[in-house]
This record gives sequence, C-alpha cells and structure tokens, in this order.
Amino acid sequence: MLGDFTYCNPTKLYFGKNAMDGLNRELPKYGKNVLLVYGGGSIKKNGIYDKVVAILKANGKNIFEDAGVMPNPTVEKLYEGVERARAAKADLILAVGGGSVCDYAKAVSVSVHCDEDPWEKYFIRFEEPACETLPVGCVLTMVGTGSEMNGGSVITNRKAKLKIGHVFADEKIFPRFSVLNPEFTYTLPKYQMVSGFYDIMSHIMEQYFSGTDDNTSDYIMEGLMRSLVHSSLVAVREPENYEARSNIMWTATWALNTLVAKGKDTDWEVHMLGQAVGAVTDATHGMTLSAVSMPYYRHIMRYGLEKFRRFAVNVWNVSPEGKTAEAVAEEGLAAMEAWMRSLGLVMNISDLGATESMLDDLVNATLVMTGGYKVLDKEEIRAIFKESL
Amino acid sequence: MLGDFTYCNPTKLYFGKNAMDGLNRELPKYGKNVLLVYGGGSIKKNGIYDKVVAILKANGKNIFEDAGVMPNPTVEKLYEGVERARAAKADLILAVGGGSVCDYAKAVSVSVHCDEDPWEKYFIRFEEPACETLPVGCVLTMVGTGSEMNGGSVITNRKAKLKIGHVFADEKIFPRFSVLNPEFTYTLPKYQMVSGFYDIMSHIMEQYFSGTDDNTSDYIMEGLMRSLVHSSLVAVREPENYEARSNIMWTATWALNTLVAKGKDTDWEVHMLGQAVGAVTDATHGMTLSAVSMPYYRHIMRYGLEKFRRFAVNVWNVSPEGKTAEAVAEEGLAAMEAWMRSLGLVMNISDLGATESMLDDLVNATLVMTGGYKVLDKEEIRAIFKESL
Repeated sequence: MLGDFTYCNPTKLYFGKNAMDGLNRELPKYGKNVLLVYGGGSIKKNGIYDKVVAILKANGKNIFEDAGVMPNPTVEKLYEGVERARAAKADLILAVGGGSVCDYAKAVSVSVHCDEDPWEKYFIRFEEPACETLPVGCVLTMVGTGSEMNGGSVITNRKAKLKIGHVFADEKIFPRFSVLNPEFTYTLPKYQMVSGFYDIMSHIMEQYFSGTDDNTSDYIMEGLMRSLVHSSLVAVREPENYEARSNIMWTATWALNTLVAKGKDTDWEVHMLGQAVGAVTDATHGMTLSAVSMPYYRHIMRYGLEKFRRFAVNVWNVSPEGKTAEAVAEEGLAAMEAWMRSLGLVMNISDLGATESMLDDLVNATLVMTGGYKVLDKEEIRAIFKESL
Repeated sequence: MLGDFTYCNPTKLYFGKNAMDGLNRELPKYGKNVLLVYGGGSIKKNGIYDKVVAILKANGKNIFEDAGVMPNPTVEKLYEGVERARAAKADLILAVGGGSVCDYAKAVSVSVHCDEDPWEKYFIRFEEPACETLPVGCVLTMVGTGSEMNGGSVITNRKAKLKIGHVFADEKIFPRFSVLNPEFTYTLPKYQMVSGFYDIMSHIMEQYFSGTDDNTSDYIMEGLMRSLVHSSLVAVREPENYEARSNIMWTATWALNTLVAKGKDTDWEVHMLGQAVGAVTDATHGMTLSAVSMPYYRHIMRYGLEKFRRFAVNVWNVSPEGKTAEAVAEEGLAAMEAWMRSLGLVMNISDLGATESMLDDLVNATLVMTGGYKVLDKEEIRAIFKESL
C-alpha cells in the first residue's frame, strides 16, 4: 500500500558521452565566483579537471579551488571549506568527483551563511537550514551514492568517532544540475568499481526488504536490481563497455534519489552493520556492506519469507515450482551470493581487518533500525558479526 | 545502450489520502487570482469542487471559473480559456480533473501572453513558447495520461479534423505541483476506469517495444507493467481497494512522465492507430488502443522477437524452458490478451462503431511512426484494421 508522501526532485541531469556540454547551459545561470571542489587529484590525471576548468573560463568564471576532499569528509574539512566559500564570495559550488565530494559540497552549501556550528545543527540535531544556501552543481566521476540527485550529506567527526548522514528534505539543497558521463567511470580500479556496484545493490535491497504490502516501488526496484545484476557482470569482464556502464550509472541514480522509497518502510540495517565495520577498520564502504550481507539476510529471511521468495523468483529467476517458500528463498540468496563472488566482492569482515577481539566494539557501534523484517537485539548483531568473520 | 539525454522533472507531487493539504503549502507561493479549470461538473457531485474552493478561499484567493473542458479539449475552448485567463489577470491556473483538463490548462498557460495564434504556433509548428507562461497546478481525479507530471498537451481542431499533442520541453510548463489522491478515482464508472488502465499499459508498451540494446529503462518498465497487471485485476473486483488504486495512480504517473523513455527509441504506433479510430468513431481513447493492440502486436512480433520473448518471461511469467522464442513470445501475447479480456476491455473496433466501409478513412488517418520494430506500410495498416474489425 502506498502511504502518503510528497515527491519532488528538480535536479537537472545531463547524461551521456557529451554530458559535460551541459555545463555551458547551466553556468550562465549563476554568478561569477565558483568554488571548485574535488578530492585527491585523480581528476587531474584523467583530464576531467582540465576540461572543467576550460569550460569555467570560457564562461567567464572566477575559479576558487577547494581540493583534498577525502573519501569520508571530516568536520574539520567542512569548516575549512566554509571559510574558502566565504572568502571567495562563492555564487556556485561545483563538485567534481564521487559521492563524498558531492556530499561535502552540500554540507558547505548549507553552512556558508549559517551562524551556528553546522556539525551541531545539521548532523547532531538534524535541523534544516534556516539561512540562505549556495547552489551546488556536480560532475560525477564515480557511481554508487546517488548524491548527484538527492539531499543527502555524510560527514565524519573523528574526535567524536561519529560518521553521520543527514538527508536534507528541502529540494533546493539537491544539486541544481549533475553531469553524468559513464565514460568518466572507466578508470576506477576494479576493487573500487565492484565496491560501488554492491553499494548500489545494497541501497536497493535496504529499501526493498521491508513491508508486507503490494507496492509499485518494489516492482521498480526488482527492475533496477535485474538491470544492475546483468550490467555488473558485463562491466567486470569489460570495464569500458559503455552499455553496461551507462546502465549502472543510471541505476545508481534511481536507486537512491528518493523515488523507490516512496510510500514504503525501509530497513538500512546492513548500512548500520557496515558502518560499524568501517569505524573499526576504515575499509571501503561497499565492501563493508558485502562482508556482512549474507549472514544478515540469511538471519532475517525467516521473518520476511514471502518477500525473500519473491526476490528469488523476480530478481534471480529461481523457478518456484514444486518447492517450499523457504527453499525458493534460500535458492535466491544462494544466487545472490554466487553473483557477489563472481564480482570479486569481499565476503567476510576478517578480510577487511576485523578480528574476534573487535566483536564488542562492532556490536556497540551498530545502530539498530526498526523498518526491516526483524529489529535486531545485541545477541543477534553479535551472531551476525561472528558469522561474518 | 543509454543514449545521451537530459532529464529534469521538477513537479512537486502530493500523494495520498491527505494529498489535498498540499494546496495549503503551494497556494501561498502564487498571486491572488486563480483560474479554476474543470470539466463537465462531476467534481461538483463528488465533493472535490467544494473542497478545492474552500481551500482557495481560506488562502485568500480570488476564484475565476473556467468550466466545461471537454474530454478532447478543442481549439475554440482554448481561445475562450485564454480570454478568461486574461480577463482574470490570472496568477495561477488550477486544473481539477483528468488528463484533458490538465492538458488544457497547460495550453492556456503558454497562450495567455502569446501574440501569435497558439494553435498554429504550438500544435502545427510545434514551437516552444517565447513569452511568459502562467504556472499550472493540478488536482488529479482520473489516472492514465501522466499529464500531471509532464509537459504534454493535446488539443483538437474539429474543423481541420486534427487532434495534435505537443510535448513541451521546458520544465516550467510542467505542472508546478499535482495533488494525487487515489480515493478521488473510486467513483469513475468501470468502462472509463479500465479504459484508463489500458491507456497506462499502452503508454508503457509503446516505449518498451523498441530497440535491441540492453537498457535500464526496459527493466523499470517491466516492473511498472507487472505492478499494473497485478493491481488492475484487484481494482476491477474491488474498485475501492486503496492499495490497488494507489499503485495504479503511481504507475500511471511514472509511465509517462519522461523517465522510462530516457536513452531509448519509442514506438507510439498503437496510439496512431487508436487515434485514427477515435477520429472516425469518437470512442474512448483507451478502448481505441485496446481494440487495435492484439492485431498490431501479433503482426510486429516477428520483427522484434527477442523483446517479445523477454516480455512474455519477465512480465507474464511464461516459462521459457524447452520452447522456441516464437512459442514463448506467442504465449506472452496470449497472456496479455487474457488479461485484457478479464478487465473487460473492448477487443475490436466494430464494438466501437467502426465498419468495413471506414477502412480507407482509417488507413488515411493513421500516422506512420518509425521508432518501433517495423515501419508499417499502407497495406499492413489496412490488414491490422481489418483484423481488428
């Protein structure tokens, strides 16, 4: 049953091999001062930086750089970015990179004109901005997070040992535009590439495995998962297969741009387990999710059996004839595990550096969500981590 | 393969049993003068009119009425609406009704400040507006057209015997907001209800049956079709089943709000055949589509066999094992026909008043599209109509 909701997603997407031309259509809408935000400098090696700078100059912009955004942007970096944006009197923040860079740009956007401490206001108290915000644009170079078309922003506070995501509700905090060229994703190393693929899958599954009603969103998600499974297997064999990479890029955007969660409950417990692993090991996000997924889903299967049966049939083509729901559901999870292994995903947390001695820390660092098929207690969380070792 | 494209759809949707509350959030954004556009008056019987007027008054608006929008809005009505909007100095056009009312509101919006003849400019020369346009809001009372979240507008010129649709590209012509309460669709008579259901299905199929590449959009459409097939069968048994009606309403919006056509070719030949039937018989739109569909799809099946095989397996659960692609594809179309018959759709054009003597007129009135699996020649079009009799 579709519950009451509102939906609005005004981000303009420029998609394809010539997507960068979209910058020429968007830049004239904003003032002269552009804060150019990016990460560790890989965009200087692959030529994307030069292309962006050339287009900014051709459009008469003053470029102010804010480089060095890390994979998990810190609150200290946020404070620094706010100072840079203020000094530049920035009219537009242009994020060039993956989800972290885009997340960070949004955090700077809501903080530039904010009189309070943005960490406290947005990431502890989860408030919406009361001040003016800066428009954000994005040139995406990595897929997975959906940050290019949503209001999400994740910031890490190392001192407080907290990594907190805030999904801003106000659409004006969504990127005004995003440039999505699938070719920009070709150069990513395989480990990061497949980690991103599983992050996408996990986003969909976290929203799929909840609720017992009949809901159009679930049907859309089955389509997205089928597309992702198909294209990911092509992409690991042929990283420069444009068909596969373009389908994956598009699937990633729609997996987490708010659409498929409409009218339904969502889970997100795998992300909580994975983030706990990330906190103790500093491992790549997608791999922390893959390493805990099979034990988690095998544990909760019995509590949402019908949905797991449906998942097996509609996503993994398991034939249900003459089989119990449980057998069908198990076959589906086995098919999922085989797909994960063939992508080369990390399948246990030991391979990410976790040890038995860390179990207490892992359990304590795991937030318990309530939207899935089973609200986990501490013993269950411990058992899942133990199984994941 | 996802080709290059842009995507932007800023319409804000208020969905659910309390969706009408969204008006209180939207109306303060606009000036005082509201042109209230609606159809034949059914909204006065079911209470929706009173609710809307009460909210408009509570928000201090001056209401100017423009009633009597017909199922196929005419160019004369458009001229009349433009005069009314000018006299009212309208700040907002609020359309309350189905797709026709919403289509009409958009046509008025782009014509109020236009110095040229809007019929010539927009529906003959297919130009985009060069003038200021009026914002449009929508309270939807019928599902099917997707007009609540796209830039489409269809206007009929009886003198010229033309019914022409223009899909405006500029997002500012899309409704700024739409109110979608599935309960508002309960009172529609069964004939109109199932006609709308098939219109939705046809919108998806017209976009699905084209291309030979692997494309995420096709996977999303398979999900939408599965959801529609499931919920439509519930809704014919239980018209007030909220779960089914809400899923259908949501599916209808996403079937034609531009998303699923992204990066792919589309067909639309069934709409051309159906519109020819509509021109000679004045029959209900969805029924003209259902009456020609089976002969059309059985004819083109051989030219897009792999896609029809996939349609059978992924939408109709046909087991492919040990069968030729052709046998699987035929089984899929048979399942589709059985579904159509169980909804009570009109399955031939004789039942809509067409006769053998009209065949020449039908063939001449049919536009030939080029995006599908077979570009039809006149003889094929005649054969399809003959088969549809």
